[in-house]
Order: sequence, then C-alpha cells, then structure tokens
Amino acid sequence: MGKEFLNLMEPEEVKNILNSLVGDKTVEKVGLKKSLGRVLAENIYSSMDLPPFDRAAMDGYAVIAQNTFGASEDEKKVLKIIDVVRAGDYPRKNVENGACIEVGTGAPAPPQADAVVMVEYTEKSGDKILIYQGVAPGENIAKMGSDIKKDHLLLRKATVLTPDKIGVLSAMGMNEVPVYSKPEVGIISTGNEIVTPGEVLPRGKIYDVNSQTVASAVLACGCTPANVQIVKDDYQSLKKSIDSLIDSDIIITSGGTSAGAGDVLRDVVEDMGEVLVHGIAMKPGKPTLIGLIKGKILIGLPGYPVAALLVLEALVVPFLRQNLGLAFEEENHDTKKLKISRRFHTSRGRTQHLLVRIENGSAIPILKDSGAITALAEADGYIEIPKNIEIIEKHALVDVKLFRQGFTLF
Amino acid sequence: MGKEFLNLMEPEEVKNILNSLVGDKTVEKVGLKKSLGRVLAENIYSSMDLPPFDRAAMDGYAVIAQNTFGASEDEKKVLKIIDVVRAGDYPRKNVENGACIEVGTGAPAPPQADAVVMVEYTEKSGDKILIYQGVAPGENIAKMGSDIKKDHLLLRKATVLTPDKIGVLSAMGMNEVPVYSKPEVGIISTGNEIVTPGEVLPRGKIYDVNSQTVASAVLACGCTPANVQIVKDDYQSLKKSIDSLIDSDIIITSGGTSAGAGDVLRDVVEDMGEVLVHGIAMKPGKPTLIGLIKGKILIGLPGYPVAALLVLEALVVPFLRQNLGLAFEEENHDTKKLKISRRFHTSRGRTQHLLVRIENGSAIPILKDSGAITALAEADGYIEIPKNIEIIEKHALVDVKLFRQGFTLF
Repeated sequence: MGKEFLNLMEPEEVKNILNSLVGDKTVEKVGLKKSLGRVLAENIYSSMDLPPFDRAAMDGYAVIAQNTFGASEDEKKVLKIIDVVRAGDYPRKNVENGACIEVGTGAPAPPQADAVVMVEYTEKSGDKILIYQGVAPGENIAKMGSDIKKDHLLLRKATVLTPDKIGVLSAMGMNEVPVYSKPEVGIISTGNEIVTPGEVLPRGKIYDVNSQTVASAVLACGCTPANVQIVKDDYQSLKKSIDSLIDSDIIITSGGTSAGAGDVLRDVVEDMGEVLVHGIAMKPGKPTLIGLIKGKILIGLPGYPVAALLVLEALVVPFLRQNLGLAFEEENHDTKKLKISRRFHTSRGRTQHLLVRIENGSAIPILKDSGAITALAEADGYIEIPKNIEIIEKHALVDVKLFRQGFTLF
Repeated sequence: MGKEFLNLMEPEEVKNILNSLVGDKTVEKVGLKKSLGRVLAENIYSSMDLPPFDRAAMDGYAVIAQNTFGASEDEKKVLKIIDVVRAGDYPRKNVENGACIEVGTGAPAPPQADAVVMVEYTEKSGDKILIYQGVAPGENIAKMGSDIKKDHLLLRKATVLTPDKIGVLSAMGMNEVPVYSKPEVGIISTGNEIVTPGEVLPRGKIYDVNSQTVASAVLACGCTPANVQIVKDDYQSLKKSIDSLIDSDIIITSGGTSAGAGDVLRDVVEDMGEVLVHGIAMKPGKPTLIGLIKGKILIGLPGYPVAALLVLEALVVPFLRQNLGLAFEEENHDTKKLKISRRFHTSRGRTQHLLVRIENGSAIPILKDSGAITALAEADGYIEIPKNIEIIEKHALVDVKLFRQGFTLF
C-alpha cells in the first residue's frame, strides 16, 4: 500500500519510449472498395501512360490545325466531316487536309489530327463545318502520357487513402491495394465496482465507462478493438485476463494503476514482464503505466474516465497511429484556435490536458474532477498546457484539439 | 447539341435549394459498440443520479470529520478501524464517533461518514489509525447526484457520437442508442469509354475513376453507398439505371452533364421528373445538375474526376451530412490556414475551388486540368475562392480544406 511516484517521467520522454516500441508492420491486400482510410504500404507507380491515348479535351472537331489558321467571323474556314468518334469509340479514319472528324470529349484523337476546334466556334452545314476561330497545334488535345508516364511515382507509401487517392488507384485499374494491417488491441477495464452497460446495476456498483470509450477511440483512429473484458481488481483475475489477450498487438487496460490500496496492475506487469513507465508528469494521467510483456506493449490508463480519455488522446492514439504506418509527427486532431473564456491557473510543473467546451466561438474550461461524466458530456475537445505555464490569461488564444469523430473501418 | 448554360446559378442559391430538399429522417437503434460516428436522434437524459451513491474520491479512511479537527503532526488523532469497504463492496457498518472505516477510491461512503482522510495523512497502528491532518465535512466524498441528477439533459439530439460521448452513454448503462439512419446513396458513372478497375482495358477506353471516388466520399461522410453502376452514355441505359436505383435516398451520377454531344442526363431527368439546377457559377463544376425524380434527389456531377470530386466536397457532402441530421453550417472539413506559394489569377465571376498540395507549410496551387489524375495524386485539399476575388497575392493566407480521411462505419 502507498507506493509513491518518486520519479515522474516527462511526457516527451514517454513519447520517445513509445516511439521505440512501434512494432514491425505487416502488409495485407484489400479490395479498392474497402480501402478508405487505410494506409498505403508501398509506393504506387503508374502502370500505364495517362491519358492512355491522345484524347479530345472538348466536344468539337478534330482537325489539322494549319487548316484553321486565319479563320474569323468574316473568313470562315470550311472542312468536310468525314467521320464521328465518340468517347469509348476507336478512330477508323485519318484526318486529312480539308477534312475533319467530329469528336466527343474523351474520344481518342484520330490519327493526323493535331487539334480540336470547340463546337462553340463552328457552325454545321450539311456534311461540312464552318469554323469562326482558328486553333493552334495541340489545342484541346490531351496528349498520351501528358498527365503521367508509365512507371512514374504516383502515390507514396504511408499515404492515407482518402476518396481522391482512391480515385487515383481507380485510374490505374487497381482493384486491390497493399495496405498496412491494423493493429489489434485487447481492452481490459478493471474494478470490482464496474458493471457492463445493459446489465442490472447492483447497489454500490457503477457502469463501466472505459471499455467502450477505449474501444471507440481505438476504432476511431483506425485500429481494431479485438476483445473487451471487464475484470476484477485482483492479481489473479488481471493476470488471467492479460494472458488471454497476449495475442493482441497491444493491450490497453484502465484502472488499477494508482499507488494505493487494491491496485495491482504494476505487480502483475512486473511479474509477467517489465514495467517501463509508471508515473508521468501529466495532469490528469499521473499513474499511467507502460509495460512490456512477451514483446507486447501494455498501456495502463487511469480508471477515472476523464483521465483515461485524455491519456488515450494525448499519448495512446498517436502511438496507435504510428503502428498503422503513420509518422509520429502526424497531426492527430482537428484543431481550432479559439479564445479562452476565463483566466485559468494551471497545475504548474506537469503538462496539463484540460477539457473545454466550445460556445460562441470561445473555449470554456470544464472545471470538474476526473470522475465527472458530465465533463465528458459537455466537452468538445481539450487543450494542452505546457508545464512551465502558470496562468492563461482571459481571451488568450488556445489550440483546441477536437475529439476525433471517426476513421473509416469495415 | 450545343445547349448553353444561359443562367448559371450561384453556389449559395444551390445550397438553399439543397437545404430545402433535406428529407425526413428516420431513427434506428444501434448497439453502443456500433454507435461511433453516428448522430444522436434524441436528447439523452440521465436515467439515474451520478454518482449513484456517496462515493470515496480517494483511498483512505471514512470518518466523521469533526473527529479529525485539530489533527497535526504534533497532535495526531486516533480512530479505530472497524471495517474495510472496497470499490464494488457495500458498507455493512456505520461510522461512529471514535471509529473509521477503511475505503478504496470509488467505494460507497459508509453511513454517517461525512469525509475521507487520505491514506497519505495517516499511519496505521494495529487496528487503529493516527491522523496527521484534519478534513472538513464533505472532503474527498463525491455526493450522490453531485455530477448529475436523474432526468437532467446529458446529450443533445444531433450530437455526433465520439468516444467521449460513448463513455457518457456507457455511464448511463445504455447498450442501445437511438441514431438517425444513414442515407443510402445510389451511384452511377456514365460514359461509353469507362471500364471497371480490375478488368482488361480495351484501346480507346479508360478506367472508371468516379465510382469509387464518389462511393468513398459517401462512406467517408457517414452515409451508405448502396449500389454502384457503370452505364453507357445513352438515354435508355441511363434511364434504366436511374430506375433501378430509385429506392435509394439519393442518386449521384457523374458524366453526361455537359451541354455538348452525347450528353443525355438532362433529357432523362426532364422526362422522369424535374431539373431544378443545371449550370452553377462554379469552377470547376459548371455543368452540375440537380433533379428531382419521384421525390428522390439526383445530383449529376461533371465527368472529369477533379471536377466531380470538388463538387462532391463543396456541395454534395454538406448536403449528405445534413441528411444525417447535422446542421448545414456544420464545418465539414479540417481546415489549415497556410500561406499560398505563388500569385494566383482566379477565374473571376465564378466561385473557384482550387486543389492545393501542402509542402513545407505552404499551400501550392495545382495548376492542371480537371481530367488530370496526377492532380488528385498530389492534392492534400483545396481552397475556395469567392467570385469577386481577382488575384491572390503570393504568401496571402488561405484556408485549406483537407480531404476527409473517413468516418467510422460498420
């Protein structure tokens, strides 16, 4: 009882340790339709020239440009229409002097045509067109390979596949994509007092908040919550639970980390493996534990929901994203720069994460304890306050990190 | 051939029309585990007091505060430990004068106890404790209902369920959540020249880019791409395809909207229903069409991938999000304020959406045509330029709207 946190570790040092623990990534192929939000595991090179052929960029008439030189309202040039090529067709005839071929946007340019006269600058008369305005060679034709040549780099490894990038892969005709596998995260909520939502609540107990908060945050950052367990706060139960989840890539627990009575996580991790961090100079989140068991990382969050969430957002989500193949520097939050609504005295000496709600364009600090569920209900995000700041003045600009709404998963 | 866009509609007017077309929302219940990213369809009121009982906020000893008054290093107060209550237990005994009950954080406070002395300020000696520092009544006890009382508003309708809000629902013991149903979106790519990725590419053809770009954007904004079809650019094929998707909530097509040869969407929509918008004062995206067929909204995007994507982001995604129960004003993008890398001459008279890539903290305009796939490959987002701006000076600050990485879906 009463273990003290004699040496609190700085958050930056903890980040460096987490950084060094990022595992080898495995690669899998997923269908293009399932690739949204996934992270490319390889550079993608173009498999063909784009456009794959000389292509009309406008509706109009494919011509030999020289045949149109000098055309004007007063001196229209006349060309004979010898064929029509629509998008998806393939040209059957060559364009010759004095002739033209009607083309639709996207149609292959017929051989010998070196420009397209837009339909707007022409007038049709039987099987002929009258041209009001000349075109220069190359005009309104997108040359084969002008967008990209075969074997050129299109997308870099570690690109997140947003709709636009999925469009790029489509253009290459890919229907399977190499992406990094999602880390599987085992989740444990500890506490004799917690009960699964949906069950009857006996007196003296409360509903478990952290399981689904952690599972959702894991989902929202693109990983897979593999298994969720609620476990009693005793040595044997916790050890058994960790053992059963040891095939996960990462284990996240909550509760059982304080230096007080009935807190057993540290003992279990020490016996099963190695405690790397216990005690971080962060408020809330001081009792956070990081351990290594049989090569797997275990992160022990505090039990209070606000503390668990803020450690998750500030330390764990960036680490999970890194295990997905993204850089640690990757900005993990939408951020809004807002004025703070009131003067705020910080907990100097520790990096502080403060929940805020946003109202009328101001960030309003939520001054409730780490066990307050209403703090979660009201919060829109949080601000990070460096340890050397003592006071934030009213109306000072702060960066509010908004809670992540989600990340596509299938 | 050669229909002109005589009356281009302003984007603001188009938004108002879309606004008026938002359908009635249906509500469904989903399991808490499947609720990430969904939109609450009802106000959520607390179903119980929180905490549900007076609760120890620290590890220590539950006491009658008066028994500790005046305690100091020199004059320790002595109390007899008559029981132990851990989190999850229920108290069996009352605290009486001269007695105390050992409690763990989260344990119900025993009857008659009005404070908890932290373990750090005590010393154990057999079945007694010595107290160094007194506590005030109420200290270290979270009173029943002090966080929230039963029947108070916890979360408002239309809240997006982020991990923290899922924590709040967990605390209430909810395992099912009322959310708005996701709109189902039918998707059609038109063009005789387009081929599904993964198939062999015949000469004169190109791979279909828009189907998966649109489907991914629909997924990424929280809706369901219900059916994806590639259709020839002729009246009967397009009509048949729209007919087959008429049970979707919304239909999005791409291609077939220009005022040129072989473009048939307008004719089909006019015959099947009503064209509400055709021609928007926007670059790219001028030929965008909005129609109403049997009460269903059809949005016709341009065929060029860059144009399709930008209209999707600027007009369609906000409309889809509105159909999910969110306000139109809802900011739909992560935005970064960056300096533009070069002087840029706009297309004055039309609202312009310009793809940019981000490099060394600058926004670099991507000056390629709307058919360029490499423009999509390079882009990190886009900027919106109002129609009355003629020139953006080098190093001017611009708001870059980043492409949405995703929205959780199951």
